[in-house]
Amino acid sequence: MSLFEKHKPLLEQAIDALHARTFYAAFPEAPAPAVYGESADSNGKEKFQNALGKKFDELLQPNPTGWIGREESPYTQDALGITYPVFTPDVLVERATAAFHVWRKVSVTDRTGILLESLARIKERFFEIAYATMHTTGQGYMMAFQASGPHAADRALEAIAAGYEELQRYPSAALWDKPMGKFNIQLNKEWRAVPKGISVVIGCSTFPTWNSVTGIYGSLITGNPVIVKPHPGAVLPIAIFVSEIQHVLKANNLDPNICQLAVDTIEQPIAKVLAEHPSVKLIDFTGNSVFGSYLETLQGKTVFTEKTGVNSVILDSVDDADKVAANLAFSVNLYSGQMCTAPQNFYIPAAGIKTPSGTLSFDDFAQKFADNISSLVDNPKAGPYVLGAVQNQKTSERVLEAEKLPGKVWLKSRSFENPMFKNARVATPVVVEVDAGKKDIFSKELFGPIVLLIKTKDTNQSIALAQEMALRHGAISCGAYTTDAVVREKIADEMSLAATPVSFNLTGGIYMNQNAAFSDFHVTGGNPAGNASFTNPDYVTKRFTWVGHREPVKL
Amino acid sequence: MSLFEKHKPLLEQAIDALHARTFYAAFPEAPAPAVYGESADSNGKEKFQNALGKKFDELLQPNPTGWIGREESPYTQDALGITYPVFTPDVLVERATAAFHVWRKVSVTDRTGILLESLARIKERFFEIAYATMHTTGQGYMMAFQASGPHAADRALEAIAAGYEELQRYPSAALWDKPMGKFNIQLNKEWRAVPKGISVVIGCSTFPTWNSVTGIYGSLITGNPVIVKPHPGAVLPIAIFVSEIQHVLKANNLDPNICQLAVDTIEQPIAKVLAEHPSVKLIDFTGNSVFGSYLETLQGKTVFTEKTGVNSVILDSVDDADKVAANLAFSVNLYSGQMCTAPQNFYIPAAGIKTPSGTLSFDDFAQKFADNISSLVDNPKAGPYVLGAVQNQKTSERVLEAEKLPGKVWLKSRSFENPMFKNARVATPVVVEVDAGKKDIFSKELFGPIVLLIKTKDTNQSIALAQEMALRHGAISCGAYTTDAVVREKIADEMSLAATPVSFNLTGGIYMNQNAAFSDFHVTGGNPAGNASFTNPDYVTKRFTWVGHREPVKL
Repeated sequence: MSLFEKHKPLLEQAIDALHARTFYAAFPEAPAPAVYGESADSNGKEKFQNALGKKFDELLQPNPTGWIGREESPYTQDALGITYPVFTPDVLVERATAAFHVWRKVSVTDRTGILLESLARIKERFFEIAYATMHTTGQGYMMAFQASGPHAADRALEAIAAGYEELQRYPSAALWDKPMGKFNIQLNKEWRAVPKGISVVIGCSTFPTWNSVTGIYGSLITGNPVIVKPHPGAVLPIAIFVSEIQHVLKANNLDPNICQLAVDTIEQPIAKVLAEHPSVKLIDFTGNSVFGSYLETLQGKTVFTEKTGVNSVILDSVDDADKVAANLAFSVNLYSGQMCTAPQNFYIPAAGIKTPSGTLSFDDFAQKFADNISSLVDNPKAGPYVLGAVQNQKTSERVLEAEKLPGKVWLKSRSFENPMFKNARVATPVVVEVDAGKKDIFSKELFGPIVLLIKTKDTNQSIALAQEMALRHGAISCGAYTTDAVVREKIADEMSLAATPVSFNLTGGIYMNQNAAFSDFHVTGGNPAGNASFTNPDYVTKRFTWVGHREPVKL
Repeated sequence: MSLFEKHKPLLEQAIDALHARTFYAAFPEAPAPAVYGESADSNGKEKFQNALGKKFDELLQPNPTGWIGREESPYTQDALGITYPVFTPDVLVERATAAFHVWRKVSVTDRTGILLESLARIKERFFEIAYATMHTTGQGYMMAFQASGPHAADRALEAIAAGYEELQRYPSAALWDKPMGKFNIQLNKEWRAVPKGISVVIGCSTFPTWNSVTGIYGSLITGNPVIVKPHPGAVLPIAIFVSEIQHVLKANNLDPNICQLAVDTIEQPIAKVLAEHPSVKLIDFTGNSVFGSYLETLQGKTVFTEKTGVNSVILDSVDDADKVAANLAFSVNLYSGQMCTAPQNFYIPAAGIKTPSGTLSFDDFAQKFADNISSLVDNPKAGPYVLGAVQNQKTSERVLEAEKLPGKVWLKSRSFENPMFKNARVATPVVVEVDAGKKDIFSKELFGPIVLLIKTKDTNQSIALAQEMALRHGAISCGAYTTDAVVREKIADEMSLAATPVSFNLTGGIYMNQNAAFSDFHVTGGNPAGNASFTNPDYVTKRFTWVGHREPVKL
């Protein structure tokens, strides 16, 4: 049985799920022994620990110029000591060029089979990836497992399914038979989905697999070789993905350089050199707006970005203020506000929030919200695991700076004890009140656990500001609370115009930060937060070109 | 019966045709009395003649600042004297902005019905449009009828069908029901296809409707208002389209400004002002590479271009050299080489072309080709109608310049008599031999009836040069003649990598210049000849953004 035949039922389910957009997950998100085996967790942890301080030597990329690695655990603040093979951009591009002419000629079904097989193999390493993610990003164990393992694999599957579907949308051949009156003109036509060329996928430090696999698999399924350039601070999780892809390629007698890892350092970065190389045609990027916007201006390249955004919460009226405050407190605590979907700007009318038992004043809500944050932080069975650690020292500094903003500080950022990692770099959310007139303060992303409570004239001003921020500075998420159907539709419509998805009235165990594969388009591509979307048709169709040839039928 | 119901069978046929890619045409291309009625032609001619020297006053755009019009017939070299209402860019954008919020809320089915109804009305004006096209572009009657009437309407239908289909690819709502073990999380989700905003469609002087209607209908079907900015030299054909769209909108109680005409002059152009206006989000452009490439650099805009290319013919081996020479002679004579698909660079091995009766030398083929061109030009029943007239005086000058190129002139450009228009601006093809080493001569588009016979070492060099020109300077078409299957696949593969469709071994009544709606993707979007393709999924999906909202199911 071919790999395609082996995985065809999964592929078909995934394509159906793309269109149904109901709940679908191919990879179970619970790190449960019942699902993954009794020893899966301990084995994964052991493998991660065994990797520390050594060469990551499982890649199939020969003859490196050296070995480097600068990862550091936000939990221990110690270097991981893992080194990766280094190659010059020219060697990477040269190998990718040779691999291109192999990979583009592999049939779509064979490509699909190989890529799905790689996900099956990666599933066996989810726990190892989870520990690698914890100790590079600072994510809590649960998020690290889910986001870098099953959720990332689902996003990869989504890209494979979308690519496979788009590649089938036109026939590979057809007879064009045109009646001309007394005779017919008959042409044999054929269409080829021609891959664009070398793809470079540039990763970020906070979600090293989740944000990169869609570009990797999106480019691979459409026939493009990929050079994976991780953030120097978060290499290991994606290195494991690349290694498994390479081993499946090799097992199928294909050039492992179809997917290469390209590790660099902060001091000697290679992303720009790779991106500007004339042979590189596709660029996927997750990261800061300055570099992302520069990449978008490169001519002759197809560029997919996820940059930064200013996410908002619009508070108008609620059924249960306690549940709302608890839900939002979780959202801002989760991974210490280091998610691209975390809310930052909370727009609250000066007159307060309408509730069934009367209006809740601005101050009362602010206090309730701050109390909920503290209560979660102070819960030793939840806080440390929800907050995790801070990936980058600069984030910690930014949090302290936020306390100096001109406005009432409702909650100061502070430390807390992680029972397993005494030396963890941590920061709890800072909550500052800002007047709606001080737009310069809230017109930018303040990455990390920083929350601004913005006092507005009324909900109309809240909506207008949330829309303006999204249109001007980008937004990936918006939370809104209203019990009024007219206000709800106004928010839905105005935020739609700013290409920002809205989560309405979330309470309980679902949060505005979460985006589910096969249902939620992640980043819409319609505002400055990014020009691409996981995974709409464009995300894969822009990676290849339909070219048609024709010839008269021989009589 | 709604307009959607009325036209639904046509829509369904068109969607099927998009995917079957066999021959399909909704609008008969023959200007035959049996199809269009006995008096259709004479009525159309009369209406065109009645329009001359008057205000074009059928548009539903009130309060112009003035009336302008600079069209001139290439057949009579007289001004048409038709004037069109003028509006400032600010007024156009202001009206489009108001219209946007009307049109985006019209359902997809209603939009579809209205747009298909407009095509049914435009069909009644095909002959009038044909004469308008002849006397602005210089096209012969048959081409003017077909290209601006039925073929353009088919391309418009194709864009409507593609847009309709893409807008249906995701559900408008779904229940997301995630099992969490002891309970389920249920969210009601909805997805909106949010139009990007004001669309500006910038036309060209040679194909004023065919090249513009796809952008117009592509933007309209996806909910965007359109400002149509024709080339000042070819307004009337597309003005009739816009007028009919406006009248259908009005008949359905919608703002006619959903589709506006914006006429300017060469001296006071408004394309750049419109393109750079912050409210303009979509730009469609057909025309020169300099302006097209500038438009592509505009940030925050989605830009669709068809610029210029260097089209080639690769001659390797033929079954019947006479038939090949005749076919190619027609291709270069057709509309005096003013089609974006017309071939320019003919690559011929120095050793000649293989035929069943031995090798045909370079010189013998060159002579045969030149003779075939002359013979068609000199055929009074065909020549004048195939060649038509030259749209722009600069093209005539460029043809004369070509005779001075360093190389043997196999055929000089000359005049001929058009029996109906003694004063027609005409030019027959000039054919010049160029050595393959003189790349600077053939590395650019020489728009008009200019043919370069490039003497190459062998077919491999021919292929390499054709590919290089396409990759570096763009190409929209390629003709290739070979009886060798290995060479054929090499050409198909190498030109695919340059995103250039190849017509193999065309003889008889089908030409490499021709691109059929619903089958041939026009311009692939994969090389510098343009970044868009009529009509692949991107062509419509890039005009809107999928935005999803969600809310817990109320218990």
